[in-house]
Amino acid sequence: MHPDLAFAVWSGERQRRIEDVLDRALPLTDAPPSRLTQAMRYAVLGGGKRVRALLAYAGGELTGADAAVVDAPAAAVELIHAYSLAHDDLPCMDDDTLRRGKPACHVAFGVAAALLAGDALQALAFHVLGAAAMPNAGAACTTLADAAGASGMAGGQAIDLESVGMTLASSELEAMHRRKTGALIRAAVNLGARCGRSLAPDETIALDAFARAAGLAFQVVDDVLDVEGSAAALGKTTGKDIAANKPTYVTVLGLAEAKRHTAALREEARLAVQPFGRAARRLLELADWIATRTH
Amino acid sequence: MHPDLAFAVWSGERQRRIEDVLDRALPLTDAPPSRLTQAMRYAVLGGGKRVRALLAYAGGELTGADAAVVDAPAAAVELIHAYSLAHDDLPCMDDDTLRRGKPACHVAFGVAAALLAGDALQALAFHVLGAAAMPNAGAACTTLADAAGASGMAGGQAIDLESVGMTLASSELEAMHRRKTGALIRAAVNLGARCGRSLAPDETIALDAFARAAGLAFQVVDDVLDVEGSAAALGKTTGKDIAANKPTYVTVLGLAEAKRHTAALREEARLAVQPFGRAARRLLELADWIATRTH
Repeated sequence: MHPDLAFAVWSGERQRRIEDVLDRALPLTDAPPSRLTQAMRYAVLGGGKRVRALLAYAGGELTGADAAVVDAPAAAVELIHAYSLAHDDLPCMDDDTLRRGKPACHVAFGVAAALLAGDALQALAFHVLGAAAMPNAGAACTTLADAAGASGMAGGQAIDLESVGMTLASSELEAMHRRKTGALIRAAVNLGARCGRSLAPDETIALDAFARAAGLAFQVVDDVLDVEGSAAALGKTTGKDIAANKPTYVTVLGLAEAKRHTAALREEARLAVQPFGRAARRLLELADWIATRTH
Repeated sequence: MHPDLAFAVWSGERQRRIEDVLDRALPLTDAPPSRLTQAMRYAVLGGGKRVRALLAYAGGELTGADAAVVDAPAAAVELIHAYSLAHDDLPCMDDDTLRRGKPACHVAFGVAAALLAGDALQALAFHVLGAAAMPNAGAACTTLADAAGASGMAGGQAIDLESVGMTLASSELEAMHRRKTGALIRAAVNLGARCGRSLAPDETIALDAFARAAGLAFQVVDDVLDVEGSAAALGKTTGKDIAANKPTYVTVLGLAEAKRHTAALREEARLAVQPFGRAARRLLELADWIATRTH
């Protein structure tokens, strides 16, 4: 089998798998209060690339973990991501109406239901992770909480909101994105890897270096696609960062330099996991996909 | 020492203790993004009766737990409660402007910061609980997540929003409040008790019966105080449930019957923990306080 085809088969299988795990973790559509459960399911299912879940599964493959054990952290990171999208799209935040090719959750269900659905999805993430069969599920919850909270994603979103109309240096932009998107991607890789054999400290650091580079590359590509991509392919509004006068890698570095930066981060990710040899294969394939994606 | 005085001393000491635990768990005021961390601290510190923390400590006393071990679940339930207040007060939810005698978080910091502060506080609750020294911190996170999420508090709030202008039977009102406020109170008692000796299944059920009765009593008294209390004593807007055309125990049962219901729940709570003898002393004192409180 051609290596690219093998990755397509693996990622497609894992995407179907996580969709099924999420479907079973979510309350049923008719569970009361039905408007809340419908909004939760709408915000999570039927869309999304599941990059974070794939990174968790790939982290698990690095340490020889059973995919069935990785299901819990993979679902948890996707639930945190889905809640953040429901909240980020709210009128008081980024005020966006299109998400994953559908009306945003607050457009479909109203602002109050979208807010509560996000709140309930964050709780569900910790429900799933706390019950995980992985070693020390409590510590895993602490890791995920750090990635989601003030020191991670929520903190990054707060910096993002405060940065509207400001001129940021590329180091400040990077600091924001390391929290806003990078922290959860690092947690995904880390938690997946913790489902298998224990890593030596050097290995943990190497894996984290991979995740940091891959997470930043993901964001730089996001900014490039916000300029070059189409709303149809992305399933969300394009050009909105620039319209909102938000600093992006394209406005700070320029388009050509942003693309060079992506290539450098991809190489950084590759070098970081070189010592793992073939066990890091899926991680490397994901880093390639992140750097070259068009949606 | 007179028993009432002893309770006042105990609860005062525990209230100071949890304030300190929360203070240390929260990010520093000047930690960037400072607007977010200030909003988080504002939403949590310097107010509140800390009923949920006291119930956790009292649950811990039932099983002989060290207070230092109970600190984590006590802080976690208070953080979940504080986040829920920040979100419930938002304009798209209950649209309230006064909380704990101060402007609501969204009035003081803006809607976006209050929303993000709530999100970050929920994450912080699981950070703290996941790192708890209690047995099986992962399972504790799952218990807290169930209490906070769609099957608990967030679900109850969704039912509450959907009930505006509706006529509810007292059984429907009870079902709503068992989720909106009852679930987190049950979790507080349960998690505190899990910090000490293991309970037999019968004991766990008896303790849960106590927590269910105490939680419901808390809500009935809340509804009575919304009619009879003063905003100055309560530190929040009174009469607002009725102004918002929301069903309450007073509108459904009438004031006199609501007070009889409180007394019956207090007796139910007392009977539930009778088998524990003196070990349940603090729990009983808290149930008395919940039933007779004036703020």
